[in-house]
Amino acid sequence: MATTAGKAAIAWGAGEPLSIEDVEVAPPQAHEVRIQIYHTGVCHTGKYAYTLSGKDPEGAFPVVLGHEGAGIVESVGDGVINVKPGDHVIALYTPECRDCKFCKSGKTNLCGKIRATQGKGVMPDGTSRFKARGQDIFHFMGTSTFTQYTVVADISVVAVTPKAPTDRACLLGCGITTGYGAAVVTAKIEEGSNVAVFGAGCVGLSVIQGAVKNKASSIIVVDINDQKESWARGFGATDFVNPTKLQGKSIQEKLIEMTDGGCDYTFDCTGNVGVMRAALEACHKGWGQSIIIGVAAAGQEISTRPFQLVTGRVWKGCAFGGIKGRSQLPDLVEDYLNGKLKVDEFITHRETLATINTAFEQMKQGDCIRCVVDMRA
Amino acid sequence: MATTAGKAAIAWGAGEPLSIEDVEVAPPQAHEVRIQIYHTGVCHTGKYAYTLSGKDPEGAFPVVLGHEGAGIVESVGDGVINVKPGDHVIALYTPECRDCKFCKSGKTNLCGKIRATQGKGVMPDGTSRFKARGQDIFHFMGTSTFTQYTVVADISVVAVTPKAPTDRACLLGCGITTGYGAAVVTAKIEEGSNVAVFGAGCVGLSVIQGAVKNKASSIIVVDINDQKESWARGFGATDFVNPTKLQGKSIQEKLIEMTDGGCDYTFDCTGNVGVMRAALEACHKGWGQSIIIGVAAAGQEISTRPFQLVTGRVWKGCAFGGIKGRSQLPDLVEDYLNGKLKVDEFITHRETLATINTAFEQMKQGDCIRCVVDMRA
Repeated sequence: MATTAGKAAIAWGAGEPLSIEDVEVAPPQAHEVRIQIYHTGVCHTGKYAYTLSGKDPEGAFPVVLGHEGAGIVESVGDGVINVKPGDHVIALYTPECRDCKFCKSGKTNLCGKIRATQGKGVMPDGTSRFKARGQDIFHFMGTSTFTQYTVVADISVVAVTPKAPTDRACLLGCGITTGYGAAVVTAKIEEGSNVAVFGAGCVGLSVIQGAVKNKASSIIVVDINDQKESWARGFGATDFVNPTKLQGKSIQEKLIEMTDGGCDYTFDCTGNVGVMRAALEACHKGWGQSIIIGVAAAGQEISTRPFQLVTGRVWKGCAFGGIKGRSQLPDLVEDYLNGKLKVDEFITHRETLATINTAFEQMKQGDCIRCVVDMRA
Repeated sequence: MATTAGKAAIAWGAGEPLSIEDVEVAPPQAHEVRIQIYHTGVCHTGKYAYTLSGKDPEGAFPVVLGHEGAGIVESVGDGVINVKPGDHVIALYTPECRDCKFCKSGKTNLCGKIRATQGKGVMPDGTSRFKARGQDIFHFMGTSTFTQYTVVADISVVAVTPKAPTDRACLLGCGITTGYGAAVVTAKIEEGSNVAVFGAGCVGLSVIQGAVKNKASSIIVVDINDQKESWARGFGATDFVNPTKLQGKSIQEKLIEMTDGGCDYTFDCTGNVGVMRAALEACHKGWGQSIIIGVAAAGQEISTRPFQLVTGRVWKGCAFGGIKGRSQLPDLVEDYLNGKLKVDEFITHRETLATINTAFEQMKQGDCIRCVVDMRA
């Protein structure tokens, strides 16, 4: 196999716009897969924003960002048996090797196999497959989907039915799955529960659909943008609260009042550590669980009085919703095709690789849930 | 029924020694029970220390302290059906009404029935049953066991077999049950787990016996007092670490190293918020759970990076170990009598009501696990 040429959106430094230029993508080595990316989402609440603003602790430049992508396997390296050329696939920033202590535990989706190199922006052998302007370009989150061709570890990719269009399937690579999984797999919301969701972006809206699936009786959405109310209700929220309009009452107090003692489950989908505290403290004494989904900026800390935990509240979190990508994502794709999981509804904007920077501008607007970027155009 | 006269150890103000003097104890009203206290423990890590030092947010003076007591029912008010005069009983600072939202939830031992009045130091009707020097004396934690006679709500007392001596049974009213329950009921430690216990006082030692009962493979005890090593090993600890002797390495790092990635379960039995953070951060990524048992001083807060939770650690806590007093304490007493639960081993000191202040001095010494006070002498 030979090096493939294509276009990629390269981040040369923190705070700079992405630069669309030629990239050389080396062939996949053993246990690696080269994917032609058809579509990628631009993650609203995730790490992009932090990396681009220089706050991501793992950010290394120059880099090909992007972790929410779908496409077709172009070629595979030696020893790859889980996918083959032509397969429709979704890239997985949370890999699943099925062999490490984590994968075998049955308790987490956080595979440890390639954690160290993924965190450093390189492939498992310590090198990069991307080259532009004659220099190596870092990988990102083990996926790097803002490119027409990418190379990932074979444990970082899953084949899904070709019936699912890649411009929809790509969104299952992060936001939708993260929110839905947090509700259904991590929290395991029980029928009749009171649920509060902080932040009605892609992740928060998908928490709502997980709560609806598990028959929560009350789903309260908290967002400072009133425009999100119709979005939230459209996904099944029963109530909407704008915390900036409580006239001195804290959002914790308001939610405890609305739910006669506090929520059974709360979800932070904002990445704001103050909101994370409010989400915990809005939980019902004795059993309320708060799940942190949002990614905070580097160095920021969460705090509360330990009394909140001693009196029975539980503080936890998850990545990728607790979903195991290779084992569970194909079923979510089927659920989408069978009308059991909303995906189309999240897409508010579309761009092409050439206009990908516009997608980042749109992210800052309240009316953008997800922008899907066509990488072939 | 008439008012009963007896002696009590009264705290007239923060930081003052207890004053042994005559107290009048009014008869039990409807759904109240008057208990002749035979023995009471002096809680090492619990709230006494804070109340006496003025740090307890609920402290109201003058007050009869004490929450770890056993004795005999002297008389009962109207409507009391769960105990009768002559019953051997343990006072419960965590009541169990079996009727409130909390009790019916099946998810917590935190009964809400008399929470408001208990927190204010009065009986459910808003008044006190204690009088000394002509003035009302506050109750404490719904129990007040530093007195020869006390009055508690009927939901705050449980009858146990008279075969159990009250000088042992009293210790099941707090410390031993709290630690054991945290391990067995709240954490539900699984066979083969790695466990770390911070603080080897009465509660910590009892966490060890819960971990042993549930067949933990590794039980690491962390204490700044080297004398606690033999105590810890005597209860079944497999390792002991003095965090002040790690030569610059944090206790988190040390424990992660010792357990190849972190502990499955950690327990804070110190009340120190810095230790609580270390206990969380010593947990294994993906599934480690940290349980806060210690009571922190008012106003203190716990903190960590949210990344700790997003990567799968769980932060929780419990009061009274998650044990329901009326439903589960009789069985623990049976376990003690059948040799399945250590109690005698905790008793290092004995005092009488007349010398109860000595018990508080002993608490400050590292060699005191529990002092039992004979209230009849």
